[in-house]
Amino acid sequence: MPFKAFLLDGAVRAFRRRPSFSKLVLVFAASGGGLVAYADARTDQAAESCQVPPKKKVVVLGTGWAGTTFVRNIDGSLYDVQIISPRNYFAFTPLLPSVTCGTVESRSITEPIRRIISKKGGEIKFWEAECFKIDPDHKKIHCRTNIATNLDGNGEFCVDYDYLVIAVGARANTFNTPGVVEHCNFLKEVEDAQKIRRSVIDCFERAILPDLDEEEKKRLLHFVIVGGGPTGVEFSAELHDFVAEDLSRLYPTVRDLVSITVIEHGGQILTMFDKRISKFAEEKFQRDGIELKTGCKVVKVADKTITMEDALHEKSSVPYGVAVWSAGIGPHPIILDFMKNIGQGNGRAVSTDEWLRVNECDGVFAIGDCATISQRKVMEDILEIFEFADKDNSGTLTVQEIKDAVEDIYIRYPQVELYLKSKHMKDIIHLVAASKGDAEKEAVEITIEEFKNVLANVDSQVKNLPATAQVAAQQGNYLAQCFNRMKECEEKPEDISISGDLHLWVEDKQLQNSQEIGSL
Amino acid sequence: MPFKAFLLDGAVRAFRRRPSFSKLVLVFAASGGGLVAYADARTDQAAESCQVPPKKKVVVLGTGWAGTTFVRNIDGSLYDVQIISPRNYFAFTPLLPSVTCGTVESRSITEPIRRIISKKGGEIKFWEAECFKIDPDHKKIHCRTNIATNLDGNGEFCVDYDYLVIAVGARANTFNTPGVVEHCNFLKEVEDAQKIRRSVIDCFERAILPDLDEEEKKRLLHFVIVGGGPTGVEFSAELHDFVAEDLSRLYPTVRDLVSITVIEHGGQILTMFDKRISKFAEEKFQRDGIELKTGCKVVKVADKTITMEDALHEKSSVPYGVAVWSAGIGPHPIILDFMKNIGQGNGRAVSTDEWLRVNECDGVFAIGDCATISQRKVMEDILEIFEFADKDNSGTLTVQEIKDAVEDIYIRYPQVELYLKSKHMKDIIHLVAASKGDAEKEAVEITIEEFKNVLANVDSQVKNLPATAQVAAQQGNYLAQCFNRMKECEEKPEDISISGDLHLWVEDKQLQNSQEIGSL
Repeated sequence: MPFKAFLLDGAVRAFRRRPSFSKLVLVFAASGGGLVAYADARTDQAAESCQVPPKKKVVVLGTGWAGTTFVRNIDGSLYDVQIISPRNYFAFTPLLPSVTCGTVESRSITEPIRRIISKKGGEIKFWEAECFKIDPDHKKIHCRTNIATNLDGNGEFCVDYDYLVIAVGARANTFNTPGVVEHCNFLKEVEDAQKIRRSVIDCFERAILPDLDEEEKKRLLHFVIVGGGPTGVEFSAELHDFVAEDLSRLYPTVRDLVSITVIEHGGQILTMFDKRISKFAEEKFQRDGIELKTGCKVVKVADKTITMEDALHEKSSVPYGVAVWSAGIGPHPIILDFMKNIGQGNGRAVSTDEWLRVNECDGVFAIGDCATISQRKVMEDILEIFEFADKDNSGTLTVQEIKDAVEDIYIRYPQVELYLKSKHMKDIIHLVAASKGDAEKEAVEITIEEFKNVLANVDSQVKNLPATAQVAAQQGNYLAQCFNRMKECEEKPEDISISGDLHLWVEDKQLQNSQEIGSL
Repeated sequence: MPFKAFLLDGAVRAFRRRPSFSKLVLVFAASGGGLVAYADARTDQAAESCQVPPKKKVVVLGTGWAGTTFVRNIDGSLYDVQIISPRNYFAFTPLLPSVTCGTVESRSITEPIRRIISKKGGEIKFWEAECFKIDPDHKKIHCRTNIATNLDGNGEFCVDYDYLVIAVGARANTFNTPGVVEHCNFLKEVEDAQKIRRSVIDCFERAILPDLDEEEKKRLLHFVIVGGGPTGVEFSAELHDFVAEDLSRLYPTVRDLVSITVIEHGGQILTMFDKRISKFAEEKFQRDGIELKTGCKVVKVADKTITMEDALHEKSSVPYGVAVWSAGIGPHPIILDFMKNIGQGNGRAVSTDEWLRVNECDGVFAIGDCATISQRKVMEDILEIFEFADKDNSGTLTVQEIKDAVEDIYIRYPQVELYLKSKHMKDIIHLVAASKGDAEKEAVEITIEEFKNVLANVDSQVKNLPATAQVAAQQGNYLAQCFNRMKECEEKPEDISISGDLHLWVEDKQLQNSQEIGSL
């Protein structure tokens, strides 16, 4: 089931079953912030009749997949939306490896943010600047223009927000390997791709110069890719085609000196995909003459050599002309600061709940590569799940009781469905049956201990979503839909169907945090 | 008459009338270098029968209009051609102003040199490197790779030549105005155009930021162009269209704060063209709201202001966002060094004769913006012209004698035709008639003094060719044709028709210098 469908489906289902939190909020969480204040304001204004309330300020940081998709989908007439990013265009990043070799022109994979927002009617604002500090206590964003500027002062300014959507993405992770920043190319931005293209051609131009010995030519024409993920593999393949089809025709005298090496720390490339895909790629590499060094960790990059360590900790060095580092991603400094500030100091990305909210801050959301969803564990909530399902408070669950609760369990704990799928089972009842032996199914009653045993292994299926364009775009879209409906529901509360049972799932603390999206 | 046609025509005519210099050379100029050595070699080889002589090395410096057109047209099978340039592509520079505004994509106006030479069969070599020293005494070119390189050593190498074609172009001339290099954009290269585009958009992005006062916004959106030549004027017009059509839609809140100013030292813009064109452009500027400051000289550029001085030496400063300097061109440092080395220290470009040869060095040619043709003056050669025309050595010229010599005079001294044209006269006879009054024409005889009076003012029409793409391309093409035919004529000397009279035009010294092309 695709992530987007799941989240949206989950939200809609949760929304249908959930009581109107805009009412609950007034009971449970008068100090809740954002929406409460708004609800109050709305009441006051209703009393003052037709005065138009000021729009809530939604600030979006970043113009990557997550931020741009959010902006594309949010209803600009409902909110005062401001986008802040040092990059005034959106880039279709999956095609970056093709830009490195000129297969696709960089212009073709970029779209100006201002064109995107002008298509939406121009209500949305964009500031080309870099956020250098998020202040969730005062709901402020500190920015500076990212260009060497001759603005008066230091080019810094400050923006208030009611809701903040952090979508700044990630940066290449060097794992503190010495020399990587100085000597390697990355492949995150359009500029990176253009630089790689220039570097590759420069190497050919240099290798063809007179008075150069064979060894030096070979070094210049040795292209090394560190990291066998999708980016690294796709770039290697593009580079091979570029060399074979274009460059060998333009530089015929050095065509036989070219070599391409992919260095991968793990045991195989493309580990995140099906084994068959890895195998296919590895075989293709072999046919194309791309050398693959798996189980090797790069420990140092110098100006002309890359040093790596194999599984037996044996070190070896290879000379190279151009090195591309695509070994993984890590958080931007501003995200590290922010996480430290809100007590998430140990993470590798901002942790959110399943509604993409940063629990520690009011009105702050995080999406895309800079965020990770902390998936709720079944075993941590097992008692509440049991009590929720045990409608008659008998202390045991009947098969019927389990069946009634199954849908809600699936929404809240997607790992349960994944686990069942991995076991080729259709629903929890089969798990119960498997655990209770061949006992007559309908008559079975299980205790809390038995219930625990049945679900003991489902949490093994808890996985982080991959840091891909797809996930970021789906999160951006989902969040925008939530924002659009949040407003709708406030305006037409009668549309909200109240079903009282879901609140059992939610502890008071969670309820407070839920208030913005909860009101859906 | 277009320059190209004139020169080619001239060469062909000169060629037909000239004696076979490959013979003359052995008589007059045994120490002449290049061709002499070659002619000797050919004789030796003829004796040794069928050994193939090594091809002569032609080194071309530069890949602009002149160099590329030369390479496109030279017959690569006749010579060992090597091109050296820090830029491995040819750029269609007249479209640069359009690239600054995105009307044309930079990719569309560039063509890789390697593609050009691979189309020609791949015999021509290209080295991506910068020539930093020309050594005409040893016929060597010293080069270094222009990219920050991790080549062993310093990336320097040396190339020998038999013939050297200098076509390195020119660079922007700042006239030593303080602050220009630091704060102004130029418009010579594709990168310059891309940078201007980014700078203009950056100014809009900055001007639209919150918390900026009106004055600062106006400053950021004030675009100043220094120099009212074709480049500056075309850029101003493109920028105006870009602002009016695209940017004002994307940045509607600041559209009314934009201003464009063109500062021109002279009394009007586009001085090199017809007055009507200047007038049309000035009126168009007025309609478009582009401010034109003629008679103003920029004396200083600071980071936010440009200071200029008007005709009355009154200084004034204007704040600006982006400044583009297109006030003129000057020689590259390597050309300055070379000129000093060969005793042309005072010039602004390498001076050549009308055959594009650098007289001071053997086998060296200079074409395009880095060169200028020293046009022969009529008044300096008046005695020889008179003697040449005076077939019967009578000490006076009859109208018929003048008529007979007219064609050769036109070839050698194009200013004569220009002068006649400026006086709306058809040929020299009219000049004579005008000078001698209504005397019976055929019977008129004029003395040397009268002849001097007749031609006294023609040298006022001596003009340098403009530094345009057209001139550079025509020179490159012409020189390539000469090279191609030089080889042909050596191989088939019987095709050369000998007509003895032209040598009267040529002094011994000039003859020596003529030897390469002279053999045509």
